[in-house]
Amino acid sequence: MNIDTLIYPRWIIPVVPEQQVLEQHALAIQGGTILEILPAEEARTRFHPKTTHELPRHALIPGLINAHTHASMSLMRGLADDLPLMSWLQDHIWPAEGRWISEEFIADGTRLAIAEMLRGGTTCFNDMYFFPDVTGMTAAAAGMRAVVGLIAIDFPSAWAAGPDEYISRGLEVHDQFRNHGLVSTAFAPHAPYTVSDEPFERIRVLADELEIPIHMHVHETRDEINHGIERYGKRPLQRLYELGLLSPALTAVHMTQIEPGEIDRFAESGASVVHCPESNLKLASGFCPVQQLHTAGVNIAIGTDGAASNNDLDMFSEMRTAALLAKGVSGDASAVPAHSALRMATLNGARALGIADTTGSLEPGKAADLVAVDLGSLETQPLYHPISQLVYATGRDKVTDVWVAGRSLLHERRLTTLDPREITLRADEWRQRIGQAG
Amino acid sequence: MNIDTLIYPRWIIPVVPEQQVLEQHALAIQGGTILEILPAEEARTRFHPKTTHELPRHALIPGLINAHTHASMSLMRGLADDLPLMSWLQDHIWPAEGRWISEEFIADGTRLAIAEMLRGGTTCFNDMYFFPDVTGMTAAAAGMRAVVGLIAIDFPSAWAAGPDEYISRGLEVHDQFRNHGLVSTAFAPHAPYTVSDEPFERIRVLADELEIPIHMHVHETRDEINHGIERYGKRPLQRLYELGLLSPALTAVHMTQIEPGEIDRFAESGASVVHCPESNLKLASGFCPVQQLHTAGVNIAIGTDGAASNNDLDMFSEMRTAALLAKGVSGDASAVPAHSALRMATLNGARALGIADTTGSLEPGKAADLVAVDLGSLETQPLYHPISQLVYATGRDKVTDVWVAGRSLLHERRLTTLDPREITLRADEWRQRIGQAG
Repeated sequence: MNIDTLIYPRWIIPVVPEQQVLEQHALAIQGGTILEILPAEEARTRFHPKTTHELPRHALIPGLINAHTHASMSLMRGLADDLPLMSWLQDHIWPAEGRWISEEFIADGTRLAIAEMLRGGTTCFNDMYFFPDVTGMTAAAAGMRAVVGLIAIDFPSAWAAGPDEYISRGLEVHDQFRNHGLVSTAFAPHAPYTVSDEPFERIRVLADELEIPIHMHVHETRDEINHGIERYGKRPLQRLYELGLLSPALTAVHMTQIEPGEIDRFAESGASVVHCPESNLKLASGFCPVQQLHTAGVNIAIGTDGAASNNDLDMFSEMRTAALLAKGVSGDASAVPAHSALRMATLNGARALGIADTTGSLEPGKAADLVAVDLGSLETQPLYHPISQLVYATGRDKVTDVWVAGRSLLHERRLTTLDPREITLRADEWRQRIGQAG
Repeated sequence: MNIDTLIYPRWIIPVVPEQQVLEQHALAIQGGTILEILPAEEARTRFHPKTTHELPRHALIPGLINAHTHASMSLMRGLADDLPLMSWLQDHIWPAEGRWISEEFIADGTRLAIAEMLRGGTTCFNDMYFFPDVTGMTAAAAGMRAVVGLIAIDFPSAWAAGPDEYISRGLEVHDQFRNHGLVSTAFAPHAPYTVSDEPFERIRVLADELEIPIHMHVHETRDEINHGIERYGKRPLQRLYELGLLSPALTAVHMTQIEPGEIDRFAESGASVVHCPESNLKLASGFCPVQQLHTAGVNIAIGTDGAASNNDLDMFSEMRTAALLAKGVSGDASAVPAHSALRMATLNGARALGIADTTGSLEPGKAADLVAVDLGSLETQPLYHPISQLVYATGRDKVTDVWVAGRSLLHERRLTTLDPREITLRADEWRQRIGQAG
């Protein structure tokens, strides 16, 4: 049978079934889709591929899914570090955003972010920022999968003047990407402390109608809880519950402040949590009780947050930090074992974004969103367990090849659709503009 | 003037004075020592070097100091992960050690560890393990700086039968490396819960006489505290104080369990702490109160611990985790800013090991222990602040060149004194032996 691509890696780690590690197997791609995972010997006789990849030192895994980021904030990477959260936001990030956000900023910042993510094995990102149309078009042009957030916030920006315009522009963006193969949309009301009841109610109705997820910062800091109690007389999660927003459509980002009763209600609702451990640490926001949420049955995905509060978009590092921190926070060294961390960074992300039918694991019929990781270097020796090495010992620099929907976007560490030199030059131009403005 | 080497990096970050970033400067090396840091233009006219390095995208920093590791345990990297501490130790690590520890194991494991550390910008490591003579000789042969621990523990091993033999063999190793240019020694009584009073008392006297540090695990877990109270009627730190071991010579590793009164006494003693954040997380040992210790004036260094509980020897990752975790644990996003983290990973390590006159910062008269890090890739763009990018955005894969005492040990990412292929083959042989034994 003639097919597009046949890959012979040292190991295939499909994530479903959990903990499976296949050796002497091959993965066949046809029309952007995983056709079959089968014994290598059988593949050699049955298939006649246009392209063959022999990867004798590599693990082939599902592409990582960065379930929460603000891609174009990469242009503010390292602009203002080691500051208390409110000073960081009010004195640095918000003024810079007010001055610089534009279509050009979004396109350049997103391209920088996509290049970094692809080089690090991330094949899909869930974004929340202004000009989501530009973010989506930039992702599509690079061949990367993305869910772009239809942002809504009570305050004006270069993108919209107020809640009504945020929503109407968001609906236009949703229309723009309807049935797009790579880019889909989610509503992205910023957070309970920045969005009023009325836009929340409209968003709930629209998300139901359009059947798209709702992507929101929830319970990021203690201050946010205090604000909710002062302003609304209740904790934000209670307010979201009363507004009908606690549902399987909800992707609640951060969740560092959560009480036992809230965990049960959250789990029952079917909503997902996106855990951003490095951003939570860097901004001293608190610790997400990952192990408790997991035990309660909550679907937990992993995100890097924006590069201004991380300062990278490295899902290998984030996956490792999630596994390590969960042990420290729970006091249980067996919490979030390596295979769970890998699942959080892949399939759980796809579930949170409502695209688990398309991506997140290596299964026939799903898109060929794949990453090859070289486990042959001395940093991953001796190799007793490939999944353990992937999570605890390797790094994004060992990613050699990345495919999205069967298309090669990184080949032997070279980007095929983006020019790193031009991206670097553009980033440096922004540094000069933003840095000089103070 | 004729000199050995002249390096022209984009930035020089000497660590002393803190936060200094020099541009358009050069570093001159003569006889293994830093001769001068001076304006590049002046260097071009005054010096005639045998070797010149132009590093136009690079930051030149002091070599990182891994202030606590068990180098040869790299051969057990990933052997047993995600297990509770006692099961990890009793069911996996101790049996493997009992069966496999030998001169050959130490030599092969240490070589693997050194190759990994050099490729990651570490120029010096403080080791605690059996056969310290082999560790020291392996480091010396590779040209790496090391402090080898003269281990003492109440239990027999392939290295010694009991406390007396540990100490007498340790003294022989001390003699062996007396006045060695790269390798020095420290006493390394394993921990308060594994060493009795009598060997502690002998070690205190001998360390005084020989003027070498004492390197010990202290207050790693709550169980250790409970054991001290049960067995000795006091917390281990109190016991060490009464034994006269709380002194500037002490390098106390971990310190996750510490009460306010203990912090003050510890600070007054002049002892150092070695913080191993990733190992503490992975084994769920607890959180070292780094910010409180720092505020009290304690010298804090950073270590990776062994690769069996980390699972890498990556000081860039460890430095970043230390900076992030300190913010999360203290609730203060300004805790351990980037320049403090870099200092912990360099000069503070040298101070803890008693070798700050030799290494830890870029100052004339110190050994030329240097690392060049490429900050030109898109992962570190835009670049507003080089020290911030070093700590928060770059990784060990961006280290291109490493010198120890002026000798190039890594050049354009190639090891000059070690063969990665042979090291990898040997590690795989050990995997087969150890893995098959179960």
